[in-house]
Amino acid sequence: MEYKFSERVLSLKPSAIREIFKYAADPTYISLSAGNPAPEAFPAKQLGEISAKLMAENPILALQYSTTEGYVPLREHLKDYMKKTHNVGRDFDDLIVTSGAQQIMDLFTKSILNEGETVLCEAPSFIGSLNDFRSYRAKLVGIPMDTDGMNMEALEKALQTERNVKFIYTIPNFQNPSGITMSLEKRRRLYELAKQYGVMILEDNPYGDLRYEGEPLPTIKSFDEDGIVLYAGSFSKVISPGMRVGYAIGPKPVLAKMTVCKQGQDVHTNIWSQVVCYRFMTEYDFDAHLEGLRAIYTKKRALLLDLMEKNLAPHITWDPFNGGLFAWCHLPKGVDMMAFVQKALEKKVCVVPGTAFLTSENEPCDAFRINFSTPTDEQLTKGIELLGETIREMI
Amino acid sequence: MEYKFSERVLSLKPSAIREIFKYAADPTYISLSAGNPAPEAFPAKQLGEISAKLMAENPILALQYSTTEGYVPLREHLKDYMKKTHNVGRDFDDLIVTSGAQQIMDLFTKSILNEGETVLCEAPSFIGSLNDFRSYRAKLVGIPMDTDGMNMEALEKALQTERNVKFIYTIPNFQNPSGITMSLEKRRRLYELAKQYGVMILEDNPYGDLRYEGEPLPTIKSFDEDGIVLYAGSFSKVISPGMRVGYAIGPKPVLAKMTVCKQGQDVHTNIWSQVVCYRFMTEYDFDAHLEGLRAIYTKKRALLLDLMEKNLAPHITWDPFNGGLFAWCHLPKGVDMMAFVQKALEKKVCVVPGTAFLTSENEPCDAFRINFSTPTDEQLTKGIELLGETIREMI
Repeated sequence: MEYKFSERVLSLKPSAIREIFKYAADPTYISLSAGNPAPEAFPAKQLGEISAKLMAENPILALQYSTTEGYVPLREHLKDYMKKTHNVGRDFDDLIVTSGAQQIMDLFTKSILNEGETVLCEAPSFIGSLNDFRSYRAKLVGIPMDTDGMNMEALEKALQTERNVKFIYTIPNFQNPSGITMSLEKRRRLYELAKQYGVMILEDNPYGDLRYEGEPLPTIKSFDEDGIVLYAGSFSKVISPGMRVGYAIGPKPVLAKMTVCKQGQDVHTNIWSQVVCYRFMTEYDFDAHLEGLRAIYTKKRALLLDLMEKNLAPHITWDPFNGGLFAWCHLPKGVDMMAFVQKALEKKVCVVPGTAFLTSENEPCDAFRINFSTPTDEQLTKGIELLGETIREMI
Repeated sequence: MEYKFSERVLSLKPSAIREIFKYAADPTYISLSAGNPAPEAFPAKQLGEISAKLMAENPILALQYSTTEGYVPLREHLKDYMKKTHNVGRDFDDLIVTSGAQQIMDLFTKSILNEGETVLCEAPSFIGSLNDFRSYRAKLVGIPMDTDGMNMEALEKALQTERNVKFIYTIPNFQNPSGITMSLEKRRRLYELAKQYGVMILEDNPYGDLRYEGEPLPTIKSFDEDGIVLYAGSFSKVISPGMRVGYAIGPKPVLAKMTVCKQGQDVHTNIWSQVVCYRFMTEYDFDAHLEGLRAIYTKKRALLLDLMEKNLAPHITWDPFNGGLFAWCHLPKGVDMMAFVQKALEKKVCVVPGTAFLTSENEPCDAFRINFSTPTDEQLTKGIELLGETIREMI
């Protein structure tokens, strides 16, 4: 049979970059291309304890159908927690649990974007979100990044000139892939611009708790007195990605539409994992757990910075990253980025070419992404040394 | 802010039936309106054992990111199992794991259906699937059901006259809501018609293992030498719905598109639960477990049939149901179905009005759905007695 696919998926072209990702699974390669939490960052013992108790005492709760909006105690706890710790949530807002934050990208886009309408996003930005927006035939317009976040002049210009802009997508903290954090001033400006032009903001904050230097900045959602921000929270980087639990906080009418879409997508999120997350947050010292994660990654980041200074500087430079899992590295003029990535691959070290994160893979790009959360210290050391060797051979 | 939703979700109107479902959660009501497995049907002890061992020995497997297509040992096992037990799967097919079978409805529709194209479905059919098709702006055309499945003359006529038919949706075994099983002859005819008219078949089989009388019939997918059937399998009724694990078997090019869509929807299915399902199927006696389920539900069905004979016959009739979780009951001429459901509600017993399962709630309908898997024997007895009281008051 000759399959006739929908127009929306026909536009999803397999990426040239996939070829490179294939090597990342090969154990003879050093992968600096993942985005996984460090294995030692999982509270495995505690999650095991909670799950064993749950299955012994109330297995039906974990195994039976549940509600689309999510496990009520988890929803209530997260609402309180996010209000108390981040001043997120007003009377017009509600919270639903999702199958990872990725599902928020999908449900939000499905609920508010018609085919051909525009999403403004950071350039570069998270490939998983961009591909999902594309699957609803969004027109993606990338806004260049300064080292303190999206360029606000470019953003305002896009709001003035682009047609049918539906929302602005941002990862304000330790952005994937750039590691950049948006300044407080720009957060306020972004909010005012969105309000002025009548577009919504999708604030994606998977890394917010993973700050290793400097003071936390308020979320954009904390300014939201107008019901224009949809906030995406995630347990993937702070409890476990394998459990696929995230949460959306936003205006009730928007969440109501997203809930109808979620009903058709997966009925509800795995309830066993929702209960485990709830009990981990409430019966254990969640703050101490976050401190522990920051201690693990602060060390890894320090090691990376040291290695980059020794092996990559001054030829390769990097944007400031005070948290998160990634460093965004710029090659010197005259060095072709794809050629560099290929040459590194020949030395058996994988990084992600920056073009993967642009709205078009054909745009010029001098950068590649390094992940420092997944590799061991030994792998990181060897990997950065090999990248140093690579650049010295190319200049 | 005045929210502008996408056209696709604007067409999703809240159902008038939702009001009735609200009462089902009230413990002072007897709910015959659910579709949940019986609590005693869960292999809770075994799942708890497997999970405890997994979390003690290999927690990173359960907690880390995994692949979009699903846990490889589970995929391989299910391929073998479905080939051996159902003759399902050819060289051109593959298998992916999904977040419940509901996600298959969504990914398949997203991958092959353009807005305005047509889905032919049984009338009545499963509301969760119909609503999902609607969310992609499908035109739904209902094919009337005989007691041995879809009316084939009506199906052929629809294939001849409807424009842009993309697929036929069927639940051939113990259909939700009608309980009807499609005959072997009609399965073969359906396959031939789909082939002749160049449309795909979405075969949804959540209840296939729950047969309490008669001999199993081959799946439509077992005939598929042409790559035109997408088969949806589910663990929700045979292991646990709360874990949200299903699987799709179909032609590789179709699954490839669905996988790209799944990547944007939830990255992958909860891996902890995938591993638990795999080990339950392979380290325990899965056949004996299915036998146990059938024993539980055979009893419940016998009780229901007895109660219906005593309390509802001859005024109310029902379609044959040799398996599954539901009975589909027809009211006598002159009794208004919605009035009956309302009156039953006043007596504190909830059933689902048949209109909920039609492509348009405004179509005439003489039927309502009873679920017999969730209520206790006492609840079932009292509930059917109250329905008997209701019908006697109305004739």
